[in-house]
Amino acid sequence: MRMLYVIGIGAGDPDQVTVQAVKAMREVEVFFVIGKGAEKQELLDVRATILREHATQPHRIVEIADPPRDRDPVDYRRAVADWHEARSLLLEQAFVETEGVGGILVWGDPALYDSTLRLVERVHARGVCTFDYTVIPGITSIQALAARHRQVLHRIGEPLYITTGRKLREEGLRHPATVVMLDADCAFTDLCGDDIHIWWAAYLGMPDEVLIEGPLRKVEDEIVDLRTRLRAEKGWIMDIYLLRRG
Amino acid sequence: MRMLYVIGIGAGDPDQVTVQAVKAMREVEVFFVIGKGAEKQELLDVRATILREHATQPHRIVEIADPPRDRDPVDYRRAVADWHEARSLLLEQAFVETEGVGGILVWGDPALYDSTLRLVERVHARGVCTFDYTVIPGITSIQALAARHRQVLHRIGEPLYITTGRKLREEGLRHPATVVMLDADCAFTDLCGDDIHIWWAAYLGMPDEVLIEGPLRKVEDEIVDLRTRLRAEKGWIMDIYLLRRG
Ligand SMILES: C[S@@+](CC[C@H](N)C(=O)[O-])C[C@H]1O[C@@H](n2cnc3c(N)ncnc32)[C@H](O)[C@@H]1O
Ligand SMILES: C[S@@+](CC[C@H](N)C(=O)[O-])C[C@H]1O[C@@H](n2cnc3c(N)ncnc32)[C@H](O)[C@@H]1O
Repeated sequence: MRMLYVIGIGAGDPDQVTVQAVKAMREVEVFFVIGKGAEKQELLDVRATILREHATQPHRIVEIADPPRDRDPVDYRRAVADWHEARSLLLEQAFVETEGVGGILVWGDPALYDSTLRLVERVHARGVCTFDYTVIPGITSIQALAARHRQVLHRIGEPLYITTGRKLREEGLRHPATVVMLDADCAFTDLCGDDIHIWWAAYLGMPDEVLIEGPLRKVEDEIVDLRTRLRAEKGWIMDIYLLRRG
Repeated sequence: MRMLYVIGIGAGDPDQVTVQAVKAMREVEVFFVIGKGAEKQELLDVRATILREHATQPHRIVEIADPPRDRDPVDYRRAVADWHEARSLLLEQAFVETEGVGGILVWGDPALYDSTLRLVERVHARGVCTFDYTVIPGITSIQALAARHRQVLHRIGEPLYITTGRKLREEGLRHPATVVMLDADCAFTDLCGDDIHIWWAAYLGMPDEVLIEGPLRKVEDEIVDLRTRLRAEKGWIMDIYLLRRG
């Protein structure tokens, strides 16, 4: 049975790959790169560094461009479903046209805000090509954030809530410890309260990594300003933060 | 400045250490083993395997037994605080009595339901020994769970809630996706509803690993029975699960 590895590679620092990921990468004969063209150069560089260092056996790299997407559809849900279907057909085709152990590298961990596993599951379920697949976990940006700030994410015995910028705006801060990802425009500035502490980071593990930590009301302007400046300078930003009350 | 590495080693599979952890372990001259005596043999075996494979340089291992704990104190909070203080004094003493780069190996990731970082922060804050410390993230049991079940933890764009068995009993199931850890007695059996799905695992990454997945109402008895039997046979169990509604 042909094997496909879905490999978490960590969220920025090339040394944050696991030994298990390295062993899998060494077995891979064909790497599928999904969403070609959409990604930032720095993210591609991290992947390239990891492959150069660990995938020392002969291997092919097959790039799969994302299908065009209707950005202003009449039926939004339908358009998204169609797009996922089109993506999975492209992956299936690439799979059929190649041979040997397959591999897909995923940013951070495949289990967290990533669509690769859903895509692979779709191809697998259709049954046109028969294969088995193994998931290899990777260090998430949440863990990179906590490690750089040397923080335990939650208080003793307390829960942790992981959410997106959009949801934080909708719901406000409802949990004692909250990690926010995928926040395009500083949803933390909408929160009420003087007892919130923030641990923020951008470009974790990469040369431009920056960290800011402090009472939210004291450091929020600094974060907004730095974020705006960095995004303008580099053309993109990727940031994440932990919020705790009290 | 003397360096101390707090190193996440993954939650069971020795291959789930990162290259960064391996590099740090190779620098360490003295490993501090905290809580000596309290841990299960299998967990010690995972640590020993990792050290044998990666800490190939000469190094010392200093074991620090936990101080005695008053299990039935008059003032509970005070007793816990005293105990943490006593633990940190023992670590401080071990640190003062040794030389060279220090290391502490932590199960899973140091940022998740673990007290090592709070202990180190306490020693650091007291300032009796001056040192700097670096945290190295590790694969958590949550990620091992998701990888073995080949699941994305949450639905697209939805939040994820991470909690304990005790809290789940108190609060019920309030989020679309919830991971439960530290559950000593199957809190999931208390939940109401026919639309809950569970992905359960015990001994992840270890030889006895078991997985069960299905609609909660259909598989809960099977999980309870298997859990009871395994705990009786082996004398201990460590399990974790993901719950989703709908
Ligand atoms: C599509 S999600 C992918 C998450 C990834 N699977 C993981 O495990 O971290 C992208 C979001 O992750 C966070 N992120 C990923 N890498 C990051 C990094 N190096 N620095 C800061 N944030 C990062 C940001 O919040 C970003 O919006
Ligand atoms: C004190 S917490 C430590 C968590 C650890 N720091 C981590 O990152 O996974 C212990 C809990 O983690 C979960 N756990 C840790 N290792 C596990 C494993 N190998 N299999 C199943 N559950 C595990 C269980 O829920 C257990 O009660």
